[in-house]
Amino acid sequence: MHPPWQQCEQIWINANLATMDPQRPGPYGIVEQGVIGICRGRIRALAPMTELDLSALPGQPIDAGGAWLTPGLIDSHTHLIWGGQRSDEFTRRLAGADYAEIARDGGGILATVRATRALSERELITRARPRLRALLNEGVTTVEIKSGYGLTCDDELKILRAARALGEEFPVRVRTTLLAAHAVPPEFIGRADDYVELICERLLPKVTAEGLADAMDVFCESIAFDPQQTERLLLSARRHDLGLKLHAEQLGNSGAAALGARHGAWSVDHLEHLDNEGIAALKSSGTVATLLPGAFYFLRETRRPPVPELRKQQVSIALATDLNPGSSPLASLRLAMNMGCVLFGLSPEEALAGVTRHAARALGLGDQLGILAPGYRADMLLWEIDHPDQLAAEVGTFAPRQRIFAGEIDHAPFS
Amino acid sequence: MHPPWQQCEQIWINANLATMDPQRPGPYGIVEQGVIGICRGRIRALAPMTELDLSALPGQPIDAGGAWLTPGLIDSHTHLIWGGQRSDEFTRRLAGADYAEIARDGGGILATVRATRALSERELITRARPRLRALLNEGVTTVEIKSGYGLTCDDELKILRAARALGEEFPVRVRTTLLAAHAVPPEFIGRADDYVELICERLLPKVTAEGLADAMDVFCESIAFDPQQTERLLLSARRHDLGLKLHAEQLGNSGAAALGARHGAWSVDHLEHLDNEGIAALKSSGTVATLLPGAFYFLRETRRPPVPELRKQQVSIALATDLNPGSSPLASLRLAMNMGCVLFGLSPEEALAGVTRHAARALGLGDQLGILAPGYRADMLLWEIDHPDQLAAEVGTFAPRQRIFAGEIDHAPFS
Ligand SMILES: [Zn+2]
Ligand SMILES: [Zn+2]
Repeated sequence: MHPPWQQCEQIWINANLATMDPQRPGPYGIVEQGVIGICRGRIRALAPMTELDLSALPGQPIDAGGAWLTPGLIDSHTHLIWGGQRSDEFTRRLAGADYAEIARDGGGILATVRATRALSERELITRARPRLRALLNEGVTTVEIKSGYGLTCDDELKILRAARALGEEFPVRVRTTLLAAHAVPPEFIGRADDYVELICERLLPKVTAEGLADAMDVFCESIAFDPQQTERLLLSARRHDLGLKLHAEQLGNSGAAALGARHGAWSVDHLEHLDNEGIAALKSSGTVATLLPGAFYFLRETRRPPVPELRKQQVSIALATDLNPGSSPLASLRLAMNMGCVLFGLSPEEALAGVTRHAARALGLGDQLGILAPGYRADMLLWEIDHPDQLAAEVGTFAPRQRIFAGEIDHAPFS
Repeated sequence: MHPPWQQCEQIWINANLATMDPQRPGPYGIVEQGVIGICRGRIRALAPMTELDLSALPGQPIDAGGAWLTPGLIDSHTHLIWGGQRSDEFTRRLAGADYAEIARDGGGILATVRATRALSERELITRARPRLRALLNEGVTTVEIKSGYGLTCDDELKILRAARALGEEFPVRVRTTLLAAHAVPPEFIGRADDYVELICERLLPKVTAEGLADAMDVFCESIAFDPQQTERLLLSARRHDLGLKLHAEQLGNSGAAALGARHGAWSVDHLEHLDNEGIAALKSSGTVATLLPGAFYFLRETRRPPVPELRKQQVSIALATDLNPGSSPLASLRLAMNMGCVLFGLSPEEALAGVTRHAARALGLGDQLGILAPGYRADMLLWEIDHPDQLAAEVGTFAPRQRIFAGEIDHAPFS
């Protein structure tokens, strides 16, 4: 028996491995009837059963009985922490009100900002828990959480601290993103540049001093921050060694995707209005195109992101929930996978790649998460299914049989 | 203190009651800061807190702390028990294949029939459990389960027995529907009338002798059974004292809704192609119009059921999952509520009525389920929300805080 197997603390046998490893041929990078062993929270070795002498494996392997093993799911774009709720806007939109009308009446992002500012870190955590549990119970092992409902230094820090605390409390990797540039706060109306300056000069140093953020995100749209302001923010974030992400080309095309690509952004997100120039820029920079079908669905949009062209140019496509109280109150990454197929035309395999391998890259973690391969973190899910297409094709019909986080088997469901 | 309160075994105080009782004015039939008492599994009394001397209430009331109480949710149309899975069809449809092409290759309903026939009652139950648990954990307290994947006497009986057994195992009311007329079985191709005769003369007597079904359903479409065959089945089912339901006007208009109305059907379901004549018939018979947005969504249909006209004519509208392995692999009634709003334009209040009061009528249970009122069954849900619109406006963000079935507090989530 080779040394790697001898070092394994836990081994699964008789599991069909959907490795999602692009170096393996065929859809899903499948290893049928595979064996996988983990050591100190990482995958140590994997192979087909036929290539091993099973009787020489150390310890007591777990017989998966032909179930499927996939990487843990990664939700790479959420605004999971918020105060209040905005079902009134949902109801008004159904009755015909448009976004501008709702914003004029004090709704939209700023309504959530008011409610979020009013809550303590502890209260925000209490409200966020059920949303995070829902994701975990579906199989999410890594989740990105953005700030952006504070829009003052203290309130943005409060949200990021709440996000870090949730990561301590639950078996999930939390990646935090500073989205102070989500909207121009009421105190800065007409003075967006001053707010950008505040973020760059006062907030970013505090955030990085406390190690509260892994990345910076900017809402680059006509109703928020323009490309110039966005660029200033990106440059400042890079100086602080943060990863870069953008909300881009959702409501119109502003060239934000290309701007993000030029600065080496991990991902640009939404992209309903992405053009060919933007696609070419993403291709050359290796920036991930993150699609958010939940917002498309809830806002009853009709313009879809250019999936066929992205596919043709081999741009990495991630899928995420965009979980937020307004445009995507959707605490289900599995449903986002399904909507990626039904609404955007992705294949089930592309949907799974979008919440594993590509989602990992969208968080700057492509070298350690998102595929089943030696050296990668042992965040894994065991599924009682006949085919991995079922993961995107069905909604709510089954949960993971086993959730393995950092090599440890969980006691999901969490409640 | 009035006698009804003295008899209560359990009382909730400080709960906002969304009674859904049409006799109460205003949306949701709300009683703010209400008190509700139950006795022997039924609601015994309810009133605003201000009208009671709380200190005179018997026992130790539960303080709901301002949470909302609604009737338990009712999924009035499911095909929850099946063998196999059909993600291959999902993938093929995404790649452009149409229904006829898939059926020609042995897919569609008959693929599920083959897989279902091959399983025992016990195996079917094992596979159905996760789907049923998912519904229960969302707040479903009553679920209809149809047969229809057996298409032989023995296999249809097997499915109905499995459905009854699930009702014994879980805290949920299971209502069973014989849908032997789901498709013409392979053994009867070209001899549909003979199959109809088999159902009427041999299967129905067995089903009723064992008390295995509460209702009969027929798939009345050009690809299944025509109006004449449907009428024969309905008449036969009525002689056996079964309630009547129909799959109607999904793929085209065949007058099935009016046919169902004429025979006093509890509900007619799907209805994308329902015309004004059908609506008038439903109105005069009091038959419920059951909408199934999951099938509309999965099949990427564009023609919507005539909601504005149904609303105008005050036809009762129910919403259900249509949970099945092909056209609606959707084990989430909450998502069906949300899709009823986003895809069909229902209001959140109409969505909740569609899975409570109207869904109860669609199962012939309108006199005992679906509203919070004295005499009704105490199937209730306590929700940590600010407004009942949230129940349809958000997806997956919260589960019921408490699930009360037949007056007993459950230990959900079930896993
Ligand atoms: Zn977002
Ligand atoms: Zn159906």
